[in-house]
Amino acid sequence: MLRSVAVAKTRLPQSRLILRNLSASVSLRKEASRTAAAPLGRQRSVSDINECVLNAKYAVRGAIPLRAEELRQQLEENPGALPFSKIINANIGNPQQLGQKPLTFYRQVLSLLQNPEIIERLSSDELSKAYQPDAIRRATRMLEEAGGSIGAYSGSQGVPAYRQSVANFIAERDGEPANADDIFLTTGASAAVGYILQLFCSGPQNGALIPIPQYPLYTATLALNNAQALPYYLEEESGWSTDPEQFEKIIKDAINKGVTPTTLVVINPGNPTGAILSEENIEGIFEVAAKYSLVVIADEVYQENGFNDVEFTSMKKVLRVLQKTQPGSYDNVQLVSLHSTSKGVSGECGQRGGYMELVGFSDEVKQVITKLVSISLCPVVTGQALMDLMVRPPTKGDASYELDQKERNDIHRNLSERSSMLNSAFQSLEGVSCQKPQGSMYLFPRLHLTQKAIAKAEAQGIAPDEYYCKELLEHTGICTVPGSGFRQVPGTYHLRTTFLAPGTEWIESWKEFHEKFWDDHRD
Amino acid sequence: MLRSVAVAKTRLPQSRLILRNLSASVSLRKEASRTAAAPLGRQRSVSDINECVLNAKYAVRGAIPLRAEELRQQLEENPGALPFSKIINANIGNPQQLGQKPLTFYRQVLSLLQNPEIIERLSSDELSKAYQPDAIRRATRMLEEAGGSIGAYSGSQGVPAYRQSVANFIAERDGEPANADDIFLTTGASAAVGYILQLFCSGPQNGALIPIPQYPLYTATLALNNAQALPYYLEEESGWSTDPEQFEKIIKDAINKGVTPTTLVVINPGNPTGAILSEENIEGIFEVAAKYSLVVIADEVYQENGFNDVEFTSMKKVLRVLQKTQPGSYDNVQLVSLHSTSKGVSGECGQRGGYMELVGFSDEVKQVITKLVSISLCPVVTGQALMDLMVRPPTKGDASYELDQKERNDIHRNLSERSSMLNSAFQSLEGVSCQKPQGSMYLFPRLHLTQKAIAKAEAQGIAPDEYYCKELLEHTGICTVPGSGFRQVPGTYHLRTTFLAPGTEWIESWKEFHEKFWDDHRD
Repeated sequence: MLRSVAVAKTRLPQSRLILRNLSASVSLRKEASRTAAAPLGRQRSVSDINECVLNAKYAVRGAIPLRAEELRQQLEENPGALPFSKIINANIGNPQQLGQKPLTFYRQVLSLLQNPEIIERLSSDELSKAYQPDAIRRATRMLEEAGGSIGAYSGSQGVPAYRQSVANFIAERDGEPANADDIFLTTGASAAVGYILQLFCSGPQNGALIPIPQYPLYTATLALNNAQALPYYLEEESGWSTDPEQFEKIIKDAINKGVTPTTLVVINPGNPTGAILSEENIEGIFEVAAKYSLVVIADEVYQENGFNDVEFTSMKKVLRVLQKTQPGSYDNVQLVSLHSTSKGVSGECGQRGGYMELVGFSDEVKQVITKLVSISLCPVVTGQALMDLMVRPPTKGDASYELDQKERNDIHRNLSERSSMLNSAFQSLEGVSCQKPQGSMYLFPRLHLTQKAIAKAEAQGIAPDEYYCKELLEHTGICTVPGSGFRQVPGTYHLRTTFLAPGTEWIESWKEFHEKFWDDHRD
Repeated sequence: MLRSVAVAKTRLPQSRLILRNLSASVSLRKEASRTAAAPLGRQRSVSDINECVLNAKYAVRGAIPLRAEELRQQLEENPGALPFSKIINANIGNPQQLGQKPLTFYRQVLSLLQNPEIIERLSSDELSKAYQPDAIRRATRMLEEAGGSIGAYSGSQGVPAYRQSVANFIAERDGEPANADDIFLTTGASAAVGYILQLFCSGPQNGALIPIPQYPLYTATLALNNAQALPYYLEEESGWSTDPEQFEKIIKDAINKGVTPTTLVVINPGNPTGAILSEENIEGIFEVAAKYSLVVIADEVYQENGFNDVEFTSMKKVLRVLQKTQPGSYDNVQLVSLHSTSKGVSGECGQRGGYMELVGFSDEVKQVITKLVSISLCPVVTGQALMDLMVRPPTKGDASYELDQKERNDIHRNLSERSSMLNSAFQSLEGVSCQKPQGSMYLFPRLHLTQKAIAKAEAQGIAPDEYYCKELLEHTGICTVPGSGFRQVPGTYHLRTTFLAPGTEWIESWKEFHEKFWDDHRD
């Protein structure tokens, strides 16, 4: 059963109850299309909607966050009405929503790109109060590279000079050449996932191997493409590592059922798990990819978010070593590596910057991708510029350098400390276990829920971990995502929480909640 | 034959010739999937790609613009190498690429949103040299509305306060209420088209009625969704008007072939035609939509671009009048109206701002749309802010008002003058006819090509209008899009050109080229 993995039973707020009966609507729809080609004189309703869209789920903005939004509005209208004073949005990696300050250098350059006139309007003395000289030089150059205005469409692949910056960054990171022609700037990394899955994984006869637990963008995009999600499990006990041994069986089972696996998704550092893959794990993945011609999507958007001295190695670097040490065996491997301006120490989610690097793709395929991306004209140009800034920060000797370094180090230290603190809290809680955080912005603790808790959840018609998350939200204002939204080994329960929220009070209130919850739900 | 409309024969530059044989590749692919479920140990190539992606065409960035890019690079390397000194990109409505200045007020606010720190760093005297006080007030307020940073993800539907601004704008424009809950901010208008067609028009049993000629986003998106484009023809002789009488036959033919028309696309003001629909035309369209339950997509992104005193009336306004004057008859009509920050006097294409207003949709359908848009997290927040600025410009009494009015009027007058000038030029050319421009940024002149020209094109394996556009480009550097890229009545030939390029020299060089071309191709 390819689709037997535990899936979130979406519990919807009161106003959305009607959506519960979607499967009923869907069968109605089939009935309708059999009996009447055009439904005369009525409205098109949920029963007329593309089933693939109905089937797609995206828990990060699902029932629990929707309920949090309702509670936030209640608090706005009546601040004393609830047992907490604010909502802590730990459901989504959105650092600036939780008070993380943007890097000064980025914002100086971006503001000059929007309003270069200021350079003429102020004297250089005045200007120097608000802008470092290297920021002004950089903005002037980047504006020219964008053709004179960031309000013009760029080429669909992105501004050539910005793509060159990305290629330089990759070359330096990996010690291996990178080519600007292989770089596509995108509207966040999500857009890149959409393009690649649309290309290679469309229709029920195609499938993508996805890690479980996974970031739900993948299952959602596969559902939109009516393609199959072929789950492979990460091993919680060994720090959410990947066992490449399991792939052979999954692939053969899929083929026996008439499904061709075309794509293999790797999220490293892991979301929601926070794990960083070992080089051995990555090598094993490429071995399978080479054998079965799987396009590897390497979701590496958390590559800057490493902690506890565990080092991130890019999949491309590992691939290049394999190709050198075992000539011929890995020449056919195709890799798409994703990065984003939303994570790392940048945290500029709302600016929607991203890139994908295509490794091992023919010119013909790249031309098809260019055509596909051109249908949406171009990624937002300020997001492209931000990507250039992210991969090419100030260097020693630049006026912005010292402050930039300080800001980066502060953010990094903060994240690292908070991840440890939250992990310690989980270790101290009864019935909770948590793998040591290595990277990303999340912890994914396991909840060893009691039969009583499970029965209560069932009585409410929701998944057990959703029940826990809901109770947590209603009592503390802390908004998390149930593990079922990411899929998990059936019979296990988790939740994903970011450790981005400042302060420690919320962690204390979580502990208090948990102790009471556990006492109330003893078997 | 639903798909018998003349389609661009994509002629690709030398390096892209291999793509010509896509249909051969596609049949190979089918063969492959029949004989081997997983192609072991080779690369995935064009023959493995989703056929829907291969079938999608987008001529605005097609063969002619690609060739223009090659010529631009030649000019950069060797400025004297060609019979012209620069490329005139008249292929795409990209005003700022051609030197149109952004509106000062927009950019002041956007730069403050990126770098609000400047308000603290400069004295108010210094600040006032670069920023008007109303721009500072506006930015401060909008930043707060966005939750404190434009670097945070917003809600997936967009920042509530910005959506309220859009609703206010619509209410004032139409004299009819509008609701912020019905507004979805989007990454340009293209994203909105993608969402709605994905919802209602997916799979070969569903079709969308699209005007011919059309903006190729529509056929491309339908191809990506594997759905049917059901063409209806605009009447060139009567200024590209729409004859609603034709719909009955098209719809019945489609139904007889097993295709359910679910959607009807209207582009008003027209792209590529430049025509503005009469209210009678719009009423006729709603009559059909009501009868056959068609979701109407009103692409109204050029609503600010009217000339020659022809007035734009929104489709929503016409619908509301119909609903009032003929109670009950139009209650089921569902309308999606699109707008964008890329056109009008804003011309901020690279900033990717857009909205869609949903009229007549149930809460359940809106919830499905909310889920769908949430998979891409949120539209770029600066683009959302720009939409707020566009629909809520400075008003009388604001410090920015006078300059803003002047800039708007200048742009509008410039566009109007240039459209007239270019139209006069076309009227003076032998073998060319052109409808009087009413709106948008384009003219779509008809080329009454000679048999000799048609034969030459056939000898090169390209469409006759593509041959003309190619010759025009090679001799003058003017880059246009052949009518075949928008589809057209078979046996007729057109091209689309913007009238955005400043100056008149390029129009003169076009005239010269045309006279010589015509002389060389007399039958």
